[in-house]
Amino acid sequence: MATVAVVGAGAVGCYYGARLAQAGHDVRFLLRRDYEAVAARGLRVESHHGDFTLERPAIARDAAALGRADWVLCGLKATSLAAAAALIRPCLGPGTRVLAIMNGLGIEEALAEAVGAERVFGGLAFTCLNRGEPGTVRHLEYGQVAIGHLGDDPAELERALALWEGARVEVSAAPSLLRARWEKLCWNVPFNGLTVAAGGVDTEAVVTDAALRAEAGALMREVAAAGNADLAARGRRERIDGEAVAARMFALTDAMGPYRPSTLIDFLEGRAIEVGAIFAEPVRRARALGVAVPRLEQLTALLARLDPGRA
Amino acid sequence: MATVAVVGAGAVGCYYGARLAQAGHDVRFLLRRDYEAVAARGLRVESHHGDFTLERPAIARDAAALGRADWVLCGLKATSLAAAAALIRPCLGPGTRVLAIMNGLGIEEALAEAVGAERVFGGLAFTCLNRGEPGTVRHLEYGQVAIGHLGDDPAELERALALWEGARVEVSAAPSLLRARWEKLCWNVPFNGLTVAAGGVDTEAVVTDAALRAEAGALMREVAAAGNADLAARGRRERIDGEAVAARMFALTDAMGPYRPSTLIDFLEGRAIEVGAIFAEPVRRARALGVAVPRLEQLTALLARLDPGRA
Repeated sequence: MATVAVVGAGAVGCYYGARLAQAGHDVRFLLRRDYEAVAARGLRVESHHGDFTLERPAIARDAAALGRADWVLCGLKATSLAAAAALIRPCLGPGTRVLAIMNGLGIEEALAEAVGAERVFGGLAFTCLNRGEPGTVRHLEYGQVAIGHLGDDPAELERALALWEGARVEVSAAPSLLRARWEKLCWNVPFNGLTVAAGGVDTEAVVTDAALRAEAGALMREVAAAGNADLAARGRRERIDGEAVAARMFALTDAMGPYRPSTLIDFLEGRAIEVGAIFAEPVRRARALGVAVPRLEQLTALLARLDPGRA
Repeated sequence: MATVAVVGAGAVGCYYGARLAQAGHDVRFLLRRDYEAVAARGLRVESHHGDFTLERPAIARDAAALGRADWVLCGLKATSLAAAAALIRPCLGPGTRVLAIMNGLGIEEALAEAVGAERVFGGLAFTCLNRGEPGTVRHLEYGQVAIGHLGDDPAELERALALWEGARVEVSAAPSLLRARWEKLCWNVPFNGLTVAAGGVDTEAVVTDAALRAEAGALMREVAAAGNADLAARGRRERIDGEAVAARMFALTDAMGPYRPSTLIDFLEGRAIEVGAIFAEPVRRARALGVAVPRLEQLTALLARLDPGRA
């Protein structure tokens, strides 16, 4: 059994941390908003796979109190990425590894500057999770996580997958973390973006509006093209099959119902939205590579202005 | 002196009608919201060229009471285009001509179905006008009107220009109405569109935000390309100089200050916005002509969803 420190314990951190605790790992949660509620009543997961509660999870208000861990599960918003190193550092021992279950591009590279590239993994979660009342996470749909290693080292990847043995999470290996990141963006860009830019609507409103659905598909193709240019520029041979990814993303989203992505909830509740990692960084790479991404550019410009957290 | 019936007496109809009355024409205004206020206190124009009031303008609540006119000045929103024929018809005599000072594409063609193409003119107003208190129009900046004839008949165009002799309005001849329409869209698409889609901001916010300014320029180039394809497809030899138009539009808008286009005001006040004529019709023509307009497509899809008047 491993010791796991959960940093950035929002819906994603709490849910996946709770699944690891359920599997028997020693999981410690760094909490702010939910500390009192979890201290009083435990951490509750309302899941379409069955509800459960961690009655007395190990929790802390301060990263220093988490102690050294075998794994740090980082579920921060990308808007807090600059704060990640300071939160993770107290948990680091010589063998500690860091798994970032976050959205966007450049996440692992930023963490690697703080902790070293060989320790860093990315988790691409395809899941519908929202925070409920304090101390409660709602797991609405899906839940699978594709895990990659920043160096794409197969032995390291095996270590990461082994952590999840016995946990009720469907994990898979992403042999190319960079490709997996871009493929995940094929969902996040249209759905996190258009739900906000269309005035605050859910995913169902996007997939059932013919013009917005077409726009979502066109954005996916732009992202896939930029991703393939990025892979090529880094000498990688693997590619994204844009049409196959789009078909999969629409099939998953059509079955999702009226889901509100985290970016939409942040927007509606007046918090900073993840413009940089999900939108601006892909635009930056596409421009540097000479790939035309007009739709992504427009969406990014609009979201940067709509961002409640803009400077 | 001519008799002029003003139909669609919002800010545009009231302002230009008042200028014609000031020049001595017999101008009659069809009013709804402002009827009582104008009946009580006259029609007031607060203009950066000097304020003035029409003390006792001829006004009516019903189009039938306007009587036959030499000219119908139509200042309806494009969202009311379907109602235009019924409002204009009571004013029509054998020699009546119709000047539509409206935004968008397909305006004159729609009016022509009701009144005949030879009578129809378009006025492209580049002006900052807002409604003030009931009975008051605020003329903030600019004011020039380019006038074209649906058949591009030079003799007819001379008649339309002659109407404005002595009026304090800078009018010019648009020898190609279609080109003038597309050039006007080079302003309306980015500024009416982005001010709404960026969450309800004024034109100054667009031109001073580097990303939104770049987006506005890119939209202008898409509109110009679509316009040139439309002109070519109709066998016209004249073209839009996209770069020159963009430079002119930015120069005018930079000097405009924090202006709120009518579409933005309609959006903020919960009224239907002119998605069809300004956005959807250009998209439709571009697609039919095989011109890629990805930014215009995305903006149109977002605005259609944001439209308070959407079905």
